[in-house]
Amino acid sequence: MALQVGIVGGGQLARMMIAPAVELGLGVRVLAEEPGMSAGLAATAVGDYRDLDTVLAFAKDVDVITFDHEHVPQDVLRGLVDAGVAVHPGPDALAYAQDKIDMRTKLAELGLPQPDWAAVTDAAALDAFIADHGGRAVVKTPRGGYDGKGVRVVSSSAEAADWLDGLADGAALLAEELVPFTRELAQQVARRPSGELLVYPVVETVQQGGVCAEAIAPAPHSAGRLADVAAEIGEAIATGLGVTGMLAVELFQTGDERLLVNELAMRPHNSGHWTQDGSITSQFEQHLRAVLDLPLGDTAMRAPHAVMVNILGGPAEGTLGERLPDALSAHPSAKVHTYGKDPRPGRKVGHVNVAGDDLDTVVYEARAAAAFFLD
Amino acid sequence: MALQVGIVGGGQLARMMIAPAVELGLGVRVLAEEPGMSAGLAATAVGDYRDLDTVLAFAKDVDVITFDHEHVPQDVLRGLVDAGVAVHPGPDALAYAQDKIDMRTKLAELGLPQPDWAAVTDAAALDAFIADHGGRAVVKTPRGGYDGKGVRVVSSSAEAADWLDGLADGAALLAEELVPFTRELAQQVARRPSGELLVYPVVETVQQGGVCAEAIAPAPHSAGRLADVAAEIGEAIATGLGVTGMLAVELFQTGDERLLVNELAMRPHNSGHWTQDGSITSQFEQHLRAVLDLPLGDTAMRAPHAVMVNILGGPAEGTLGERLPDALSAHPSAKVHTYGKDPRPGRKVGHVNVAGDDLDTVVYEARAAAAFFLD
Repeated sequence: MALQVGIVGGGQLARMMIAPAVELGLGVRVLAEEPGMSAGLAATAVGDYRDLDTVLAFAKDVDVITFDHEHVPQDVLRGLVDAGVAVHPGPDALAYAQDKIDMRTKLAELGLPQPDWAAVTDAAALDAFIADHGGRAVVKTPRGGYDGKGVRVVSSSAEAADWLDGLADGAALLAEELVPFTRELAQQVARRPSGELLVYPVVETVQQGGVCAEAIAPAPHSAGRLADVAAEIGEAIATGLGVTGMLAVELFQTGDERLLVNELAMRPHNSGHWTQDGSITSQFEQHLRAVLDLPLGDTAMRAPHAVMVNILGGPAEGTLGERLPDALSAHPSAKVHTYGKDPRPGRKVGHVNVAGDDLDTVVYEARAAAAFFLD
Repeated sequence: MALQVGIVGGGQLARMMIAPAVELGLGVRVLAEEPGMSAGLAATAVGDYRDLDTVLAFAKDVDVITFDHEHVPQDVLRGLVDAGVAVHPGPDALAYAQDKIDMRTKLAELGLPQPDWAAVTDAAALDAFIADHGGRAVVKTPRGGYDGKGVRVVSSSAEAADWLDGLADGAALLAEELVPFTRELAQQVARRPSGELLVYPVVETVQQGGVCAEAIAPAPHSAGRLADVAAEIGEAIATGLGVTGMLAVELFQTGDERLLVNELAMRPHNSGHWTQDGSITSQFEQHLRAVLDLPLGDTAMRAPHAVMVNILGGPAEGTLGERLPDALSAHPSAKVHTYGKDPRPGRKVGHVNVAGDDLDTVVYEARAAAAFFLD
């Protein structure tokens, strides 16, 4: 019997684990939120991941439980562990991905570079933080946000009054300085339960409306110290937070060449999709290897440059499939990945990877191929 | 609704089409011979591919029918076409892959280089052929052979007496000269129904006991004229025989630098497995694109060298999965592909691909990694 990985969540990240699982000979089973999701081919159950009994039933006969997202509640995670199920990343690590104030507190303990921040519970505290940071701040709900949701840039507490008013007893908002960054980077790290750890080359990411639009690997002008610092930060977080599986660390690079930790994701991440065609071991294969505590694969690049361009939204009418022939015809070296999702404005429905020797060519090919899927 | 490919046959070739289908967003359905086969994840039906009704039922709602093997009978193939199903490769092309005498006859018509051959129906004719070709000949049953089965090297018709005695009325055996080749090559070609055609770099194959054991891409010392001739032969066969999808042409290279056509396969072929990790477009993705008449992908290599080493047989006890940790640990750059098949002496149960800059290193890594799965 092959090793079996159970993935909670049926989105595109689970979908993209199917290919490497099939090739390596690993079994993969998905607990999907509903029928017909991206990872439907491997769905063996449909149910509510917030229900412990549902997840426990799904977890029978798998060697490890891992995740398509970080939203599985702590009581479910801990119920799995109590029942003897291997869970990677585990509840303690995931808690830091689930609560941004806990994450900031932990990174501060570890002495890692991050934006100034404060947990604020009332308007006065938020206004004081804003005043101390040049008249503006980023306010975040600590839980449940992603892809720019749950994040606002404000110049007065009044702009977050609804969030402040809605705070439960003991709850807080996260206030962060608005970092004057020159660009955003992302560092992928893989770590096994037994401790082996490998980093990928740091990448530059381009965001549009709070959503990752492109990733360029390696980040231009990152050779040497910058790449080393990014890797060291990634390693320190993976080890310090006890992350198992893939970790993505989103970083701000400042004008004075500092790197500050923005967000964390404890799973394959959009900023690492380029690894499917640009790295010897994709982040999806690596995640499977890591959570099963199998030896990690080589993270070296297959080519000097690799670029990922998201297909955001897709065409206003029709399907991605209808655009496929023209895109493939015009760009035979582009690797098109689609998620089996219906087009909808702003929705991540696919991406294009291109790898090669010349960065300008690689960027052009990836952007031009992705554009065939938009209006 | 995504484009749907229906694959007849649930073996490893069908299995390896799953990964690129998922990534490109193509639907893939498999008619498996029995439950639990290599391509089981995509199996939507289990049944007898020799039964037209079974195959017609499977073919409902797919955009094209293609194959894991060449054994689907002509009446079933023609029944599909008559019912309006797109079938690639089609019956006319597959007939040449199903009957080696028909194939030799057609290649002769096309003026393509091949070993001397004759269709022989009795002992006297076979002995005459043997006498004319240095006292030895290769005798083949025209139908049903693969991986060295149905092939004998004989020095007298007595050694093929059982086959001769068993010949049906009008049937013949194929006699071929025993070519004094210096090595074997294989040429992969992709061709769409609408005519677009692309070739891969010619590879050197190493056979053990009639079974492909290794493939080295590109074939060492093949730059220039040799590669051009191999490509021209492949193109001429794909076009001349009307092949759609992937075509593999197995070639003998002689001491006087001629290339002679040995065997044909009209599907992804063992000699092309290296493309999964060594080419921008794998033969499995390319086959899907070709049979759907989608534009073909770039066949350029991802690295200067790529090597595939088969895992033949597997361990005498235990599973391939039990060997995985040590293999991955020792060879982090090796790409291990397994087929979900139980080990059995001589059986193809998986392969290892390695790509890189230095041929000696690549060969060593692939062989050493594959050896972890043997006793």
